[in-house]
Amino acid sequence: MATQGQVITCKAAVAWEPNKPLVIEDVQVAPPQAGEVRVKILFSALCHTDIYTWSGQDPEGLFPCILGHEAAGIVESVGEGVIEVQPGDHVIPCYLAECRECKFCKSGKTNLCGKIREATGAGVMFGDRKSRFSVNGKPIYHFMGTSTFSQYSVVHDVSIAKVDPKAPLEKICLLGCGVPTGLGAVWNAAKVEPGSVVAIFGLGTVGLAASEGAKAAGASRIIGIDIDSKKYERAKTFGVTEFVNPKDYEKPIQQVIIELTDGGVDYSFECIGNVSVMRAALECCHKGWGTSVIVGVAPAGKEISTRPFQLVTGRVWKGTAFGGFKTRTQVPWLVEKYMKKEIKVDEYVTHSLPFGEINNSFDLMHEGNCLRCVLDMHA
Amino acid sequence: MATQGQVITCKAAVAWEPNKPLVIEDVQVAPPQAGEVRVKILFSALCHTDIYTWSGQDPEGLFPCILGHEAAGIVESVGEGVIEVQPGDHVIPCYLAECRECKFCKSGKTNLCGKIREATGAGVMFGDRKSRFSVNGKPIYHFMGTSTFSQYSVVHDVSIAKVDPKAPLEKICLLGCGVPTGLGAVWNAAKVEPGSVVAIFGLGTVGLAASEGAKAAGASRIIGIDIDSKKYERAKTFGVTEFVNPKDYEKPIQQVIIELTDGGVDYSFECIGNVSVMRAALECCHKGWGTSVIVGVAPAGKEISTRPFQLVTGRVWKGTAFGGFKTRTQVPWLVEKYMKKEIKVDEYVTHSLPFGEINNSFDLMHEGNCLRCVLDMHA
Repeated sequence: MATQGQVITCKAAVAWEPNKPLVIEDVQVAPPQAGEVRVKILFSALCHTDIYTWSGQDPEGLFPCILGHEAAGIVESVGEGVIEVQPGDHVIPCYLAECRECKFCKSGKTNLCGKIREATGAGVMFGDRKSRFSVNGKPIYHFMGTSTFSQYSVVHDVSIAKVDPKAPLEKICLLGCGVPTGLGAVWNAAKVEPGSVVAIFGLGTVGLAASEGAKAAGASRIIGIDIDSKKYERAKTFGVTEFVNPKDYEKPIQQVIIELTDGGVDYSFECIGNVSVMRAALECCHKGWGTSVIVGVAPAGKEISTRPFQLVTGRVWKGTAFGGFKTRTQVPWLVEKYMKKEIKVDEYVTHSLPFGEINNSFDLMHEGNCLRCVLDMHA
Repeated sequence: MATQGQVITCKAAVAWEPNKPLVIEDVQVAPPQAGEVRVKILFSALCHTDIYTWSGQDPEGLFPCILGHEAAGIVESVGEGVIEVQPGDHVIPCYLAECRECKFCKSGKTNLCGKIREATGAGVMFGDRKSRFSVNGKPIYHFMGTSTFSQYSVVHDVSIAKVDPKAPLEKICLLGCGVPTGLGAVWNAAKVEPGSVVAIFGLGTVGLAASEGAKAAGASRIIGIDIDSKKYERAKTFGVTEFVNPKDYEKPIQQVIIELTDGGVDYSFECIGNVSVMRAALECCHKGWGTSVIVGVAPAGKEISTRPFQLVTGRVWKGTAFGGFKTRTQVPWLVEKYMKKEIKVDEYVTHSLPFGEINNSFDLMHEGNCLRCVLDMHA
């Protein structure tokens, strides 16, 4: 390609400082170095984690930066030593790497690859600990190793999932974060069995994906809990069989769920990021075996708590990141499942906007009826 | 037997009120009703849970009561419908039942039988919700369904483990609580694999049994943590390979352990009952897979807490009661393992006293060198 080895100047939405509207800038994107891939981002959705960092609540947030981590695109060029993808490949850049070499990857017990974590946490690339983005010579930090709110982004090859080129990128971009997180919380972290009774706290994208996962796993009851009763109708189509609004009860919601289920649920999922709800989710689990999975991301500094008796009497408290899925190995598999209509994706795309209107998508995410707003990065 | 069907008057140590010395009284022990077994208690050890309730800290403690739950004896007589044991059988009365009929027993997921739990919690028998103990006509509450600080006790048949009559009762009484709790925390709750790195907080009976269990499971490193460095020598004989005294460090003990282990342990066990230590035990676990098991019993009202990020990044927090062992099915199996010298028991018996000196055994338990003090109930 003509752009290979060249700096590309393109549009990107820069977060110059916390809690201020993003600014669409002409950004210089350097060519990929060894082990790096430059991707033309075609579609990018907004996730609550972007909003969390943008808002300034994330103590590890770095500014100025280019946010965005739920996207799909096409490889423009690759750096030295990159063999698994080549220009033209359709890809989903992932915020978790899968190097297949570190002790995490080799453990067979986790998807939390350790190889480039420190660099991506510091907003730079692993090789030279520098950014590939700049505006008028001023470096702009990367975000989560993805920075997909740019028409071109440079990512590490260990973070790139190569997917079926027949899959619609404007849909499968969602397989970069929220949908796998919910599905995997059920399939990988909890391992819900047929006949299980499940409670899902929060009926946004992640909670609905957890519900869909629980339905696929054969759960007999899927209790959706949300303070917005309007969400129940849509949730039914994702598998929710019963709805509880905590605002309708005076007693603690864990007590309500325990009474509804003759002692508690087999599995619960916190898909909000609220530490009080995390406690309720644990405590509504059945004595002896109930397992609660924390999926939501809580604000910095917040802590979860409970009486240890809850655990001594058999409940299990765990969590998951990206649903436990290994990105390079399993994201392509999720795309295949979507192509075979085994998992929903289209249904989560409630809004679409041209890239230039990205700030409006932040507002949409605060409305109850918006699940995902997909930005057309080149519209 | 001559006593069958009769009230037996015998010696028992009555806790008339919290935190006052037990009083050896002539107690009337009524005959067993349907589904009940009267056991001549031959040996009874003291466990910290007895002390906890005796001290008045246990909000569910009932007085006057007869404490004791780690014992062995011989069946004196049985009530109607009791078929699995008969007079003369050697037994360990257990504080957890195993009815094999309730939803807990049938779940295959827990040892927390639900059948008689409410009655034993209320200090009475399941059948008529009355006590079988009285002093001059005044009822005395049962404790944990066992009340083994009496020369005769009435227990539910679903709580009786029938054991090999060749096994020495003055030793295997310990298989009624502490030793199985530690072994089972490792084998059943954590399922430690060969090569694992393990941390054990608290090197009393339960912690040492956890260490022994970890060694048997093939752990490569067993790090014992205790504020009494004198405990290390003895702990080595139970499998502890390294010792850490938190008092020797200024930084938090979880940080010390993480540095010692290149990122944290695979499994940790809290065998003390201190909520701050429970947090440390969780947080010293390795990111991605480390599992922490709460074994100790915390004082009423105390809560555990941590940042949810600890769980979202792959740590698991769980707990266990009686090590997850099913009492009727597995306590006899533990006795067999002891007889085959596959598990230690004798080594935990550091002191022996005649029953009349029971109050001295309470003092002994506060000394670091005492693991278990076994009372000869008829000396």
